[in-house]
Amino acid sequence: MFNSFGNIFRITTSGESHGRAMTVIVDGVPPNIELSEQDIQKELDKRRPGQSNIVTPRAEEDKVEILSGIFDGKTTGAPIAMIVRNKDADSSKYETLKDVFRPGHAGFTYTEKYGIYDYKGGGRSSARETLNWVAAGAIAKKILSQKKIKVTAYVKELGGIKAEKINLDDIRKNPVNCPDMKAAKKMEAAILKAKSENNSLGGIIEIISENVPAGLGDPVFLKLEAQLAYALMSINAVKGVEIGAGFAVADMKGSECNDLFEKKSGKIITKTNNSGGILGGISNGMPIIARIAVKPTSSIAQEQETIDIHGKKRKIKVEGRHDPAVIVRATVIAEAMTSIVLVDALLRQRTITG
Amino acid sequence: MFNSFGNIFRITTSGESHGRAMTVIVDGVPPNIELSEQDIQKELDKRRPGQSNIVTPRAEEDKVEILSGIFDGKTTGAPIAMIVRNKDADSSKYETLKDVFRPGHAGFTYTEKYGIYDYKGGGRSSARETLNWVAAGAIAKKILSQKKIKVTAYVKELGGIKAEKINLDDIRKNPVNCPDMKAAKKMEAAILKAKSENNSLGGIIEIISENVPAGLGDPVFLKLEAQLAYALMSINAVKGVEIGAGFAVADMKGSECNDLFEKKSGKIITKTNNSGGILGGISNGMPIIARIAVKPTSSIAQEQETIDIHGKKRKIKVEGRHDPAVIVRATVIAEAMTSIVLVDALLRQRTITG
Amino acid sequence: MFNSFGNIFRITTSGESHGRAMTVIVDGVPPNIELSEQDIQKELDKRRPGQSNIVTPRAEEDKVEILSGIFDGKTTGAPIAMIVRNKDADSSKYETLKDVFRPGHAGFTYTEKYGIYDYKGGGRSSARETLNWVAAGAIAKKILSQKKIKVTAYVKELGGIKAEKINLDDIRKNPVNCPDMKAAKKMEAAILKAKSENNSLGGIIEIISENVPAGLGDPVFLKLEAQLAYALMSINAVKGVEIGAGFAVADMKGSECNDLFEKKSGKIITKTNNSGGILGGISNGMPIIARIAVKPTSSIAQEQETIDIHGKKRKIKVEGRHDPAVIVRATVIAEAMTSIVLVDALLRQRTITG
Amino acid sequence: MFNSFGNIFRITTSGESHGRAMTVIVDGVPPNIELSEQDIQKELDKRRPGQSNIVTPRAEEDKVEILSGIFDGKTTGAPIAMIVRNKDADSSKYETLKDVFRPGHAGFTYTEKYGIYDYKGGGRSSARETLNWVAAGAIAKKILSQKKIKVTAYVKELGGIKAEKINLDDIRKNPVNCPDMKAAKKMEAAILKAKSENNSLGGIIEIISENVPAGLGDPVFLKLEAQLAYALMSINAVKGVEIGAGFAVADMKGSECNDLFEKKSGKIITKTNNSGGILGGISNGMPIIARIAVKPTSSIAQEQETIDIHGKKRKIKVEGRHDPAVIVRATVIAEAMTSIVLVDALLRQRTITG
Repeated sequence: MFNSFGNIFRITTSGESHGRAMTVIVDGVPPNIELSEQDIQKELDKRRPGQSNIVTPRAEEDKVEILSGIFDGKTTGAPIAMIVRNKDADSSKYETLKDVFRPGHAGFTYTEKYGIYDYKGGGRSSARETLNWVAAGAIAKKILSQKKIKVTAYVKELGGIKAEKINLDDIRKNPVNCPDMKAAKKMEAAILKAKSENNSLGGIIEIISENVPAGLGDPVFLKLEAQLAYALMSINAVKGVEIGAGFAVADMKGSECNDLFEKKSGKIITKTNNSGGILGGISNGMPIIARIAVKPTSSIAQEQETIDIHGKKRKIKVEGRHDPAVIVRATVIAEAMTSIVLVDALLRQRTITG
Repeated sequence: MFNSFGNIFRITTSGESHGRAMTVIVDGVPPNIELSEQDIQKELDKRRPGQSNIVTPRAEEDKVEILSGIFDGKTTGAPIAMIVRNKDADSSKYETLKDVFRPGHAGFTYTEKYGIYDYKGGGRSSARETLNWVAAGAIAKKILSQKKIKVTAYVKELGGIKAEKINLDDIRKNPVNCPDMKAAKKMEAAILKAKSENNSLGGIIEIISENVPAGLGDPVFLKLEAQLAYALMSINAVKGVEIGAGFAVADMKGSECNDLFEKKSGKIITKTNNSGGILGGISNGMPIIARIAVKPTSSIAQEQETIDIHGKKRKIKVEGRHDPAVIVRATVIAEAMTSIVLVDALLRQRTITG
Repeated sequence: MFNSFGNIFRITTSGESHGRAMTVIVDGVPPNIELSEQDIQKELDKRRPGQSNIVTPRAEEDKVEILSGIFDGKTTGAPIAMIVRNKDADSSKYETLKDVFRPGHAGFTYTEKYGIYDYKGGGRSSARETLNWVAAGAIAKKILSQKKIKVTAYVKELGGIKAEKINLDDIRKNPVNCPDMKAAKKMEAAILKAKSENNSLGGIIEIISENVPAGLGDPVFLKLEAQLAYALMSINAVKGVEIGAGFAVADMKGSECNDLFEKKSGKIITKTNNSGGILGGISNGMPIIARIAVKPTSSIAQEQETIDIHGKKRKIKVEGRHDPAVIVRATVIAEAMTSIVLVDALLRQRTITG
Repeated sequence: MFNSFGNIFRITTSGESHGRAMTVIVDGVPPNIELSEQDIQKELDKRRPGQSNIVTPRAEEDKVEILSGIFDGKTTGAPIAMIVRNKDADSSKYETLKDVFRPGHAGFTYTEKYGIYDYKGGGRSSARETLNWVAAGAIAKKILSQKKIKVTAYVKELGGIKAEKINLDDIRKNPVNCPDMKAAKKMEAAILKAKSENNSLGGIIEIISENVPAGLGDPVFLKLEAQLAYALMSINAVKGVEIGAGFAVADMKGSECNDLFEKKSGKIITKTNNSGGILGGISNGMPIIARIAVKPTSSIAQEQETIDIHGKKRKIKVEGRHDPAVIVRATVIAEAMTSIVLVDALLRQRTITG
């Protein structure tokens, strides 16, 4: 219940940063879809650490193994279990942090809640968990691709630098997953600077879902925007979610904010897209636009004040292998979660139009 | 499934704007809590339309009737059903709008999805549904009050006017539910001006939850911030949700964003509250801070271009009894949904600490 | 969560025997199905007490009111709320039973669990709750009828008297809902005798579902037989459920029990139906056969020994308006619950075959 | 959704008979419980095939690996993933059965439902899946043992031979898991005879749960007996479930069936236990008694008529490594599922009495 997400297309996950393996079971996958470990691996590789000088150097191979649900290269309708073994899990360096509450970390709240805390690499609270989401998201993407639905996430803003243009083809051509090559250069420099200062940077990710048919989402408690908010706010370090015009609606008048309907090439569209492709919880056929705010990585190598488990004042430096900008890899996670939400809505829709 | 929210404390709702009645069943209410219709009514009265010149004049009494779950004035552990009859449901004026897609409205998407649309007052897509949420939220508030937890929502920004100070005692002393009496005056004037121009205004609501104990929220898919985002984004007209520093984290450095722990009067607190009282999906004992962006009411009385159900161009004026600023009453709804999320987390926590 | 049943087609119920009203919300109803209060009422009328000298004389009109989800005589995809007011709720006679645990009744366990007990007519534990199920089942039946699926329940055995032949057309032609008119006569006499002796009788109900297509049911935890067992064992007074040959399989050999496949008139069938129409959790196209054991009504007018809430010995006679054979009306409830299970499986199937 | 069971204590499973591995994720496990692979292994060993001449000789080691959720030998509140690799999975012998529908098997229904069927060893429909349940059940048992709750399942009847006495200590002292050593001898002989005749036998399992406190189970749709029926009917080959007196209530009068309350040694008990320890969906403190009917193994080595996937008549002999009496090992599975139901009810109860 607590570690499952989705209704018809449903993922259930487990695993800790320094445990034996990450495991995800994906239920509700329709049968007769071609699926291979390569389909999963290519998404995991996008998320994998150690790929450039601006992300964590943790040297994980992150090799996925599909344990069930595939027969002769196709899905069977049975649940698909996948595991990724944790390899580079040297937890010795966490011993010194054992009793100290790291600022911005879940160590304190996990200890309060459970009375026991797997402090090695953050245990269950580690963003390593999102590897499960990306693996499940790869299956979701495969299903969406059959309907020509395409989900793309990119860094729109980082450390105060904004992408001025959105060229989706450029996103994987730079190490910061930015759709504007020029801005990407500046972002990269900003990350390296922050790194040299033992600091970290936050930013904004935008997720665009194209070719989503009208009709997805189920009011009043499985509204598409609400499920997106739920999914995206579940991602570690995310502190805000907006759809379409988002917080900008606060300063708009109704006459500016309303998207006017028109018919174009036989299809009903809206002239603007302030609604972000969703009206009343249901997709309207326009691109679905979401944005999330990602906080700067909380593990930083500069000294910070804190207390330990006994309430005593302590100083702490987190000298691990952390990303100075977790946002970069969070794009892959945002893409995965958005895909899961859309597939789930797609399969629910069948129960209505079936 | 589609019209239920919550896990242990679970609400299931039904009803349309111009149907016979709004109905909500609240399941998972602990036994032996004193509860009367008056407890519910006083919350409904805060949401009720027709109370000032700046909200919709729809003259609904909104009188709640509790149908079950109470014995000798106390809850019994059985589900509580509540209904509110729709009275002022003159739907004649909707006849002209019948086949026309209103900009910003769910009429188009409902028609696409279901192939049938109850156009009277928006049917199921109407914000009248939120009356059910407020009724259920009143029960949640009663439970929270036993733990001294207090949830308060207020208009922080409206039509570009910002509340400069936050005085929680002032919120109900002005017709816009603003915690700053001076700003409230300006907001009221702005609403009246928008109304006179047949237009509407958006804004930002802030919700603060005080005295929430550390330990509420269940990673990784019932994280407290994710459930809040889910609940708040379910509210009609909401286009964005943020927790703590929210979108401002995009411009912060780790050293600025991290909240440092300290012990004060025997309690572990943080010096700042950028996290908004939640770390890794679990409350940390600090006030929980959320904000939502509410779009300007889409029903406006000025002429807008649109199309009808046959794809033909049409002009439309929505001359109903609409709020020029739905945000004002949305504060009550936001309070209710936040309360429901907190009670649900509180009851789930018992399964752990039990 | 606790008072909801079903996954896609989902009912949520509330109400007590002597409370104000019984309420049920039915979610997941596909749109564009013609539905009227008359469709519901005719099923409720079958269950209604006071219709013959062998059932409880409680004089309830049991008039249903649909509160939502219907527009122009059709379902809209929105949840359907229905209420039935409790009228003949004279609870004065329960005052004497207030502190005494009635043998076979839930008063003791409710008190242990909740620490509070609505003793009037059994409160939430009363079989009056099943009225909600029958109302929801009426909608399920309507959906099934579109697929020509027909669910029929009847008394197969009562007080030791067995139906020797199964004529489905005769079920409503006798007051005991028996498919064998001769046996029905004997059963009626047996009930009247038991009544005169201040006693009650148990029996067996059989439920047959015809024209169910192959493919319904979802292994491994939404298997069709498991969902039927869950639904039928939820009915008050049911102490056993069997599918197909049921407990008789204990004495069979594999060569006897296995149903052999053959093709007949282009359709794959089995020569026998020991499996009761379900193989591995999925319907196989044969009639689905289930049976339930219903215990004799526990409220009897003869004196029984018991204790009161203080642990003191007491004698008790329950001189209410009880059925000497609850099984008679339980046929209607069994039909409803089976229909709900089948519709839910039918709608889930769409997510697979889409 | 389809491959998950339980509400608070929730298992999600995957795996096929001849796939790579069986996987189960157990969510909702309270923290700070000592748990080792040995705790799981000892339960799996009871279920493991190849242990005597009366069960399938499939030579699986069935070695479990815990992948997550344990820290320093204790549970952490995080989900626990466990896998068991399939080793002795020689599927060559299934090639000849590929297109033939085996009588009593799910091959036909899976093919109808999913349009694809993993025929090797029955794929997802194989009882090998129950290994996951036993692994999860081992955790449930550990939790129950902390409350002194003990669940025991045994063969009560097999091939027409009945256990005349119930000595729980004897169950593991004979190869048929029978509580009566004398009957066990006869049952063993009957199994060997059936085996020599290429046939199989059915029987009845009884499950007794001792020391269950009053108050577990949540009306009206998480009643304890209904959850037991759901869980037990999910077990492969089970065709009937009864609680307490079960089907025998059909021939009882109310005065015989009602269990009279009395106070003994300060505890409220009932003189008889026809209710099987459950009243109105809630445990009453008496032992919980359930029984299930298990059909004879459908895979038998004698020739049977059937058809193939093209509708052509075929003869079939299933010469695999099958149990002539699956019921023997099903006792372990029944124990596991009952334990899971009880733990789930126990944790839900905390949300009420919390």
